[in-house]
Amino acid sequence: MKQFTSVHDVQDVAALVNEALELKQSPYAHKSLGQNKTLGLIFMNPSLRTRLSTQKAGMNLGMNVMVMNLDKEGWALETRDGVIMDGTTVEHIREAAAVMGQYCDIIGIRSFPKLQDRNEDYSEDLLNKFIELTGVPIVSLESATRHPLQSLADLVTIKEQAAAGKRPKVVLSWAPHIKPIPHCVANSFAEWMQQADVELVITNPEGYDLAEEFTKGAQVLHNQDEALQDADFVYVKNWSSYEQYGQVLTDGEGWMITNEKLALTNNAKVMHCLPVRRGLELSHEVLDGPNSLVIEQANNRLYAAQAVLKRMLESL
Amino acid sequence: MKQFTSVHDVQDVAALVNEALELKQSPYAHKSLGQNKTLGLIFMNPSLRTRLSTQKAGMNLGMNVMVMNLDKEGWALETRDGVIMDGTTVEHIREAAAVMGQYCDIIGIRSFPKLQDRNEDYSEDLLNKFIELTGVPIVSLESATRHPLQSLADLVTIKEQAAAGKRPKVVLSWAPHIKPIPHCVANSFAEWMQQADVELVITNPEGYDLAEEFTKGAQVLHNQDEALQDADFVYVKNWSSYEQYGQVLTDGEGWMITNEKLALTNNAKVMHCLPVRRGLELSHEVLDGPNSLVIEQANNRLYAAQAVLKRMLESL
Amino acid sequence: MKQFTSVHDVQDVAALVNEALELKQSPYAHKSLGQNKTLGLIFMNPSLRTRLSTQKAGMNLGMNVMVMNLDKEGWALETRDGVIMDGTTVEHIREAAAVMGQYCDIIGIRSFPKLQDRNEDYSEDLLNKFIELTGVPIVSLESATRHPLQSLADLVTIKEQAAAGKRPKVVLSWAPHIKPIPHCVANSFAEWMQQADVELVITNPEGYDLAEEFTKGAQVLHNQDEALQDADFVYVKNWSSYEQYGQVLTDGEGWMITNEKLALTNNAKVMHCLPVRRGLELSHEVLDGPNSLVIEQANNRLYAAQAVLKRMLESL
Repeated sequence: MKQFTSVHDVQDVAALVNEALELKQSPYAHKSLGQNKTLGLIFMNPSLRTRLSTQKAGMNLGMNVMVMNLDKEGWALETRDGVIMDGTTVEHIREAAAVMGQYCDIIGIRSFPKLQDRNEDYSEDLLNKFIELTGVPIVSLESATRHPLQSLADLVTIKEQAAAGKRPKVVLSWAPHIKPIPHCVANSFAEWMQQADVELVITNPEGYDLAEEFTKGAQVLHNQDEALQDADFVYVKNWSSYEQYGQVLTDGEGWMITNEKLALTNNAKVMHCLPVRRGLELSHEVLDGPNSLVIEQANNRLYAAQAVLKRMLESL
Repeated sequence: MKQFTSVHDVQDVAALVNEALELKQSPYAHKSLGQNKTLGLIFMNPSLRTRLSTQKAGMNLGMNVMVMNLDKEGWALETRDGVIMDGTTVEHIREAAAVMGQYCDIIGIRSFPKLQDRNEDYSEDLLNKFIELTGVPIVSLESATRHPLQSLADLVTIKEQAAAGKRPKVVLSWAPHIKPIPHCVANSFAEWMQQADVELVITNPEGYDLAEEFTKGAQVLHNQDEALQDADFVYVKNWSSYEQYGQVLTDGEGWMITNEKLALTNNAKVMHCLPVRRGLELSHEVLDGPNSLVIEQANNRLYAAQAVLKRMLESL
Repeated sequence: MKQFTSVHDVQDVAALVNEALELKQSPYAHKSLGQNKTLGLIFMNPSLRTRLSTQKAGMNLGMNVMVMNLDKEGWALETRDGVIMDGTTVEHIREAAAVMGQYCDIIGIRSFPKLQDRNEDYSEDLLNKFIELTGVPIVSLESATRHPLQSLADLVTIKEQAAAGKRPKVVLSWAPHIKPIPHCVANSFAEWMQQADVELVITNPEGYDLAEEFTKGAQVLHNQDEALQDADFVYVKNWSSYEQYGQVLTDGEGWMITNEKLALTNNAKVMHCLPVRRGLELSHEVLDGPNSLVIEQANNRLYAAQAVLKRMLESL
């Protein structure tokens, strides 16, 4: 595997899920694979789960791991080509990325969208420059439009929890928020579910439809109650508007998943990528109740990352 | 050992001190013990000694260590239960702690008190939530009311330096400061000394008596010169008022330990947990003189942390 | 090797360059050398290349590496002796350095000059205090007046790239910048080149002559075109005025190295320590063209650091 930035980088999704589940059984079985290999984890934004799970995944495989909060520890980065750098940016991504490629065998990179210019965000400029300029395999630790390690962990969790012999109904349900939030997790989840043996339904208020590129083939309903009928899994996530790019259009009253909403489902398991705003995105009762899978999802982040890094190490 | 947050978590204090001293002789004798075990060190506040000594202690035992400055690298944390998170906090400690427990076999956590509400600080809410929610052994790296790794290192140092055959007189002496400082180090030192074979005397200006919970059984004198008589060890530390909670009541003129003050003692060794404000808390002449143990105390932080981690690894 | 702060700490420069080149061939040949040894990397300022390359160099030698951004993670540091610390600084370097020396077998330290008081900067007070107080070997990760790991990597790069059988002409060429920049890289490069088998020419506008201590023996020309004649290597770097200390005296129009300027040389290879401001210090066309060595220089930072650390480990 030469890069991992979306589900399209994976030849056989089910095999990768199985590999993650095998690693969960034997996390230290491949410690010689990463000997004398260096994993660089580059963060432009905060991270808790992604940072810790990917760092540990590398160490479980025997790698040396270097974590760099580039926004705080490094130099202010210029990403535009051809400009005269006589302002506040100190280093160009052309040099920064190429240099990091000298020191690392695999690089993970996190960079959030600015949510101001849709074309700019959806061009995935920074991620693509890292792929182009570092010369080493790149793992997305969440980019402007996708969060594939999260989605892989989500699919692993669904695989573990789904009832045997039934194709589960999975509902991606928009949730309220007070701030404009990126589409990455929702886009990515939709994209991965389409590659899995599940029935995907997406529900969100009008004006919040995700880009068709990610949802094509899935049913999109603006009536949440209808969508929740017989759901086996409800994946809760806020995102800002794609059409009115980066805007918050509604306070989303009535869209928070509660026990009352859960009653509409097939005793659905509830998922969220975290961090979650309690009482706003998802009710306390659900998060603290028996249907929540959020901590198990976070746990599976480790094995998702480890499966991806293992594949990359094998193809170095 | 399932947690290490105060002296009350230690069954046999003298045995733990001895274990630290043995580890000082052979720091790498137990490198297989920590194989494939992960130590997470979580900081909500700055740290130099605690961070470096505990990180190294973990590595000496063969552990993988992940350091996380949660205040800077992670998400703004909500600690109150039941609130609607529609403000500035992004992640609730219920999720954050549970998630970190998934990735770590042992977690160390540092969180200072706010010094505004005594009941809030002394409830040790954050530390207790980590114990409750992570599901793994917790080491306090300094909490709102105690700093047990420091106290253990202090006791190790006293054990090393005390004259043979004599029960040493140890004086905890309040020192001047310009800012309100937590009680943790002083509370914790008092608590540990009561469990050791020493005579503890505490001296501080009126209005600065520590909580009885920590000092019960020790002599408390408001006359420093009287307290210093025949002292074998003087432990210097500032703290703000407990009674008038978090207040600075006096500039403390005359309370700084100088060579003149030392002349009242039995050529006492002088201790401080560091960082120390020179010329304010403790005189340059004493810090640079032959009676200072402050660097040796810092050195022993490593073996104190290693002894605690070793015990925890053994009981995993 | 007991310290590495300038070329004067190196007995045989050519041998150290050769050692770096050997390590480039076999970076993992000495992994047992650093077993149970701890490298502390202390940063007072941002770092990308130095941080990652030195961290990796330590790991390649089997060391445990602890990285500490002391300006962000630790306590505000006092460096003046004898002051009463009743202001904003919380810890004195006397304690901080001594403590770090307890936990580390080798310490690397980066601290930039303030560019306000020439005598203060050129006294290298902080670096010297670390050497005096830690009691362990100190590697400069860039100090107020020198950047020796960079210079060693530069010399390694020149050795690799120089045509056989010819003593190369190396031109250190001042470049424009919008802000006052330290002299470290330029001083250090000049100092190292004087110890190497090269012809060094320095060119800068009037008012920008470096301190004689570093340039003595080299030709200094204020006419860049004249200097560039027949150059085999052009080392591009901005620095502020030494005479009018820390000042920017000119916008430097016409001093940026372009393909047109390169035409004056012997098809010179172009070097820069990075980070570089594109279009201001150095043209895009040169940086993206075949004559640029900047990424290879960064690559060689790893082996320079590894050679130095190896020597230090051998003399522990």
